[in-house]
Amino acid sequence: MAGRTYGEIPGYPVGSAFVNRTELAMSKVHRSNQGGICGGQDGTESIVVSGGYVDDEDYGTEIVYTGQGGNDPATRRQIADQVLTLGNAGLARSQLEGYPVRVVRGSGGDPTWSPVAGFRYDGLFHVVDHWHEIGKDKFRIWRFRLAALERVDALPAYLSLAGPATRIPSLVQRIVRSTAVALGVKQLHDYCCQVCDIRLTTDAGPYVEAAHIRPLGRPHDGPDVATNLLALCPNHHVLFDAGAFYIADDYTIYATATGEILGRLRIARQHLIGREYLAYHRETHGT
Amino acid sequence: MAGRTYGEIPGYPVGSAFVNRTELAMSKVHRSNQGGICGGQDGTESIVVSGGYVDDEDYGTEIVYTGQGGNDPATRRQIADQVLTLGNAGLARSQLEGYPVRVVRGSGGDPTWSPVAGFRYDGLFHVVDHWHEIGKDKFRIWRFRLAALERVDALPAYLSLAGPATRIPSLVQRIVRSTAVALGVKQLHDYCCQVCDIRLTTDAGPYVEAAHIRPLGRPHDGPDVATNLLALCPNHHVLFDAGAFYIADDYTIYATATGEILGRLRIARQHLIGREYLAYHRETHGT
Repeated sequence: MAGRTYGEIPGYPVGSAFVNRTELAMSKVHRSNQGGICGGQDGTESIVVSGGYVDDEDYGTEIVYTGQGGNDPATRRQIADQVLTLGNAGLARSQLEGYPVRVVRGSGGDPTWSPVAGFRYDGLFHVVDHWHEIGKDKFRIWRFRLAALERVDALPAYLSLAGPATRIPSLVQRIVRSTAVALGVKQLHDYCCQVCDIRLTTDAGPYVEAAHIRPLGRPHDGPDVATNLLALCPNHHVLFDAGAFYIADDYTIYATATGEILGRLRIARQHLIGREYLAYHRETHGT
Repeated sequence: MAGRTYGEIPGYPVGSAFVNRTELAMSKVHRSNQGGICGGQDGTESIVVSGGYVDDEDYGTEIVYTGQGGNDPATRRQIADQVLTLGNAGLARSQLEGYPVRVVRGSGGDPTWSPVAGFRYDGLFHVVDHWHEIGKDKFRIWRFRLAALERVDALPAYLSLAGPATRIPSLVQRIVRSTAVALGVKQLHDYCCQVCDIRLTTDAGPYVEAAHIRPLGRPHDGPDVATNLLALCPNHHVLFDAGAFYIADDYTIYATATGEILGRLRIARQHLIGREYLAYHRETHGT
């Protein structure tokens, strides 16, 4: 991990306060003196959320964070497109590998969640999504949704006696979520991937995943309806979510990096797909 | 979902007590009057843990549950092999689909975690693993590891103001965990699957998963070392964990269901694989 330290820094629990960036850097909670993102393209150790970017959104346990670059420090406005390199690439990598990111809030950020003065360590978050869009200043920005890691400290009293369960020392690399409408779509496609037609067979029956075309949750707010779902094998689910391929209105599948035609989406008459969702995916996840 | 109700039953929070099985069944928390598993091969709604099987293990937030069948109700001993059908198949399906299972404990179970009398609803669990082994009575039993769902109620006070985040209505179908040693194995194989050689490429770089051959955690307690890891694409990771294929000592890959040879594991000189782990996987996950 190239000398990186992911996860908590011993001695600095959630809520630790720092007078200024120098003290923060010395603690190793955020080792960079200036940058908002500490890390390289191999992964991000920590970020500081302190109002430096007009497009940042802070919801407490969720943060929509703007990548770095193209920003005029004097006016805090975007003056050029951002690209997926350096710290931005690192945040995308951390999503892919499931590395936890330390989040520090500074007094310049959203007043609801930020400390009155100085900086505060607010715990570990996962990067759960990344995409691009046109920001308030009309330039392309990269966006990262971070979600606070869940905790298990709130079990009923008669269970807490159990002490720590056999804790598996692990990072969560990927969580595949299913929803109530997913089952119907999976069955309709007989558990075959709509891209490659593969059907994984296990002793518990066939397995396929339901992928949301326009993602659920903030800020995409895609609906949980069948027309916003695809039945995909795990491999194509990873690639679709990462924007490695996109789907045209005529269901032709293109490789995002090269524009090469990869094939055609298999469709079923009983499963209509919303073109508006395909368009949203192309605009935000294709490059 | 064939009329099934997964998840919590309104009006019956964690800790709800029931005098007997009739009251329990009427509440719909566990709709079966007799069986320990309520559900079908399409999924399990709920289970009762009450000491009916000598091989059950209860750790509070984790339960190693024995499947149904082959059991003499009079002596509670196994008198025949169990098979992966009916309720057992349903628990395996619930693992694959990520359905939550209601867990009820009865007074006959492990005294540390069980109510003194009657039955108690102890919350939602996920099935996180299933395998077979030879039980205390020398017959094959199917085993299911269940883990309590994590809660998010324990966030620091200044974050709890956030109220519920945009909750994504979802079931967790699959959690892919990574560990500290995983990165080295992935890099060594240049992020190519050791079964099919595929290398998934995204804008954040290549993606492969590190699969533990002998699983981590209770009761397998496989070690988190490189010799116990394989680099697998998500599709082959799903199939390997489900025991759909197994690997012989000479690295030949066999389909579990048919015995057909599927190929040969690609190995790297710098990445030795522990034969004892391959043997453990074959014994517990092959059929």
